[in-house]
Amino acid sequence: MGSWELTRALVSLVGAGPGDPDLWTVRALRRIEAADLVLYDALVDAAALRRVTSAQCFCVGKRAGRASVKQDTINRLMIRAARQGKRVVRLKGGDPFVFGRGGEEVLALSRAGIPFDVVPGVTTAVAAPELAGIPLTHRGMASAFLVLAGQTGHGLNRALASVAPGGVTLVVMMGLSSRDEMARQIMDHGWAPETRAAIVCGASTPREWTWTGTLADLGSATPPGDVAGVIVVGDVVSIREALAAGDASSAEVDEVKYGRS
Amino acid sequence: MGSWELTRALVSLVGAGPGDPDLWTVRALRRIEAADLVLYDALVDAAALRRVTSAQCFCVGKRAGRASVKQDTINRLMIRAARQGKRVVRLKGGDPFVFGRGGEEVLALSRAGIPFDVVPGVTTAVAAPELAGIPLTHRGMASAFLVLAGQTGHGLNRALASVAPGGVTLVVMMGLSSRDEMARQIMDHGWAPETRAAIVCGASTPREWTWTGTLADLGSATPPGDVAGVIVVGDVVSIREALAAGDASSAEVDEVKYGRS
Repeated sequence: MGSWELTRALVSLVGAGPGDPDLWTVRALRRIEAADLVLYDALVDAAALRRVTSAQCFCVGKRAGRASVKQDTINRLMIRAARQGKRVVRLKGGDPFVFGRGGEEVLALSRAGIPFDVVPGVTTAVAAPELAGIPLTHRGMASAFLVLAGQTGHGLNRALASVAPGGVTLVVMMGLSSRDEMARQIMDHGWAPETRAAIVCGASTPREWTWTGTLADLGSATPPGDVAGVIVVGDVVSIREALAAGDASSAEVDEVKYGRS
Repeated sequence: MGSWELTRALVSLVGAGPGDPDLWTVRALRRIEAADLVLYDALVDAAALRRVTSAQCFCVGKRAGRASVKQDTINRLMIRAARQGKRVVRLKGGDPFVFGRGGEEVLALSRAGIPFDVVPGVTTAVAAPELAGIPLTHRGMASAFLVLAGQTGHGLNRALASVAPGGVTLVVMMGLSSRDEMARQIMDHGWAPETRAAIVCGASTPREWTWTGTLADLGSATPPGDVAGVIVVGDVVSIREALAAGDASSAEVDEVKYGRS
């Protein structure tokens, strides 16, 4: 509870990690507990939030059938509350500075003269594959990884053009709905159709769903439609398979290794 | 304390984040509290560790003047302790699956039939720039980022050879000592010498040290020699400067915005 007095920040941009509140950081938990107002994204566990804080909590992300609150409005809400002396937590899925428009939010706060801080979170780009047994780097397989947003077309082409085919692990966020076209674009950039690929949805939540296959088959995977997911392309996907095949007791290992608590 | 009973895992690979134990996850804290044995890396806050657990704690990472414990030995220690029924935490700086040889460790556990789980951490690749005010992605600047290890020689050449000039943010880990050669190699690959660059050392610790400049000047930066650091190359470095220049009250913002607690 004392954390706010020490920082003097009025607004905290806080990463909530991939989903399970168990993967909030200790600092995130303290900020949430001490907040007067929490503006949270759709991917955040709202029930967990209300269990730990008496703050006013508003979902500003996209929810079933309802558009998300506009970025300008979110910025205005944060600034107005801070000017009223309220302690505001802007709680974002994953990490605030990985595709979260967090940079735009802190720039708006800075321009308005509002003291703020940023609390890093567990990024879904790393944690989703990880919870499915896929490391993004592995000796002899991949010594680098590229994280990109899965909007197809020019943006994807530009990012793909920045790496040689096969040399790095690709992590595609927000690319689920365009996975077929995206897979084709990746292959057009010279990646082999038989490159290992995975989809991990709802990582760390009860709705976790994992598919593995090849880049060529990515389009035919059928992930649940209403859960966010991460796509991984690269040899490291085979680590998950090697873990499952570990040894005679692999069945037992399999059962418990990604246990939640 | 109940977390272990639920997962049945005997060994937990746990990410400790960039340094400050405040950035451990809630799950990490629980695993550490309940452990019988903690094998931790040099970057982990040992004092914090001993405050929250009565487990036996051994540093297996490189420390001043002493070599790190060999990977095979770490694997054997984990497996032996698990077979004795001990609850083991393998506590790694940052995230266990980002350059941590975490994949090798879980493969060894799987082959030995030891139930395990992986607890994702806040990766230093994202958090170090973030705590210095640098988002890895930002609309109109970078829609992708590449994380690579800055080891010199063949590995570095191979990773850099695959990167096209501009377009993505580069995050180089473990590249501090070779920063001069690395910067030259990046420019040899067509990156403009005036591309913005940053070094962030000791992120989230009392020894945090940040430098910003250009790719051409990277070699002349003089970071503290004994603190791990991350190098960032790309336009997004300018966000830090924009934040500092925010507005009339920027001095106040500057003072508190990366406050620790």
